[in-house]
Amino acid sequence: MGADNQQERLDNNWIVGFTDGEGCFHVAINRQPKMTLGWQVLPEFRIVQHKRDIDVLKKIQKHLGLGKVVQNHGDRFELRIRGLKNLQALIEFFKKHKLQTIKKQSFEKFAEIISMIERKEHLSKEGLDKIAKIMSSMNRKVIPRYCYLESSETLRRMPSTEGKDKVRPL
Amino acid sequence: MGADNQQERLDNNWIVGFTDGEGCFHVAINRQPKMTLGWQVLPEFRIVQHKRDIDVLKKIQKHLGLGKVVQNHGDRFELRIRGLKNLQALIEFFKKHKLQTIKKQSFEKFAEIISMIERKEHLSKEGLDKIAKIMSSMNRKVIPRYCYLESSETLRRMPSTEGKDKVRPL
Repeated sequence: MGADNQQERLDNNWIVGFTDGEGCFHVAINRQPKMTLGWQVLPEFRIVQHKRDIDVLKKIQKHLGLGKVVQNHGDRFELRIRGLKNLQALIEFFKKHKLQTIKKQSFEKFAEIISMIERKEHLSKEGLDKIAKIMSSMNRKVIPRYCYLESSETLRRMPSTEGKDKVRPL
Repeated sequence: MGADNQQERLDNNWIVGFTDGEGCFHVAINRQPKMTLGWQVLPEFRIVQHKRDIDVLKKIQKHLGLGKVVQNHGDRFELRIRGLKNLQALIEFFKKHKLQTIKKQSFEKFAEIISMIERKEHLSKEGLDKIAKIMSSMNRKVIPRYCYLESSETLRRMPSTEGKDKVRPL
């Protein structure tokens, strides 16, 4: 195989290494009045890159057969994987090809949340509280005022602020 | 092989993926009055991580058999590879295991500079100017006041400022 062809293909371990550096396992709890509890759990995996590396995002998307490449903000694009079945497939991938950095811990918590969603536990107040607690230990920083989980000890729902109630890593 | 052992080993392609995300090919031109031209070319490869991932830096160091893990700044540590022979070995590694992002372009320019140093071209004014020009196309941003190369068109030496004359990527 020539050097050019070699470059065309991605390798599973390359994807794991790149994810250890650039990937993000993220769960948002968004205010959604139409939902029974008033909150929607939105888990996603993303890799954000400058547009000059949009091709590598497309290659990862093609290799995994999951997600889509969309604009993130300005010059940044992201491979974004959402949806229970897609995320379950992604979790299988990273169970087989193991992350090496402490991002592995975030992945394991993410996988736990996906299992809870699979068992529909996110539809109960108790389940949602548990997800919020797991999230608070996943993300390094949380913006408190948009936060479903006000603290690790006090759980209560925050009022809606024009749909901005989100838990985000900074 | 058990899962634990699998985790102990790093894979070449994982290292390439992690480097595509986190690695930095860097060349500094530092003021050094003892050198013939008054400037020293200092090429290095580094991967910087928070101290919580110091183990993964040590694993990469061990796998490649190159460089050392040292403190970068505060809570950050880096795997740092310096020295002509070590960098030549590193270049061989990345020629065999190809980078996939546009970081490959920085690598190729870095490899070109290493070849010039190998041929001792950095010891002439013309060679040093050429290295500075290559560097200016490698790094996204350069701090002008510490810069050997004032612009891509105008080449001249800048006065020493207590050894702070460095070209750095931001």
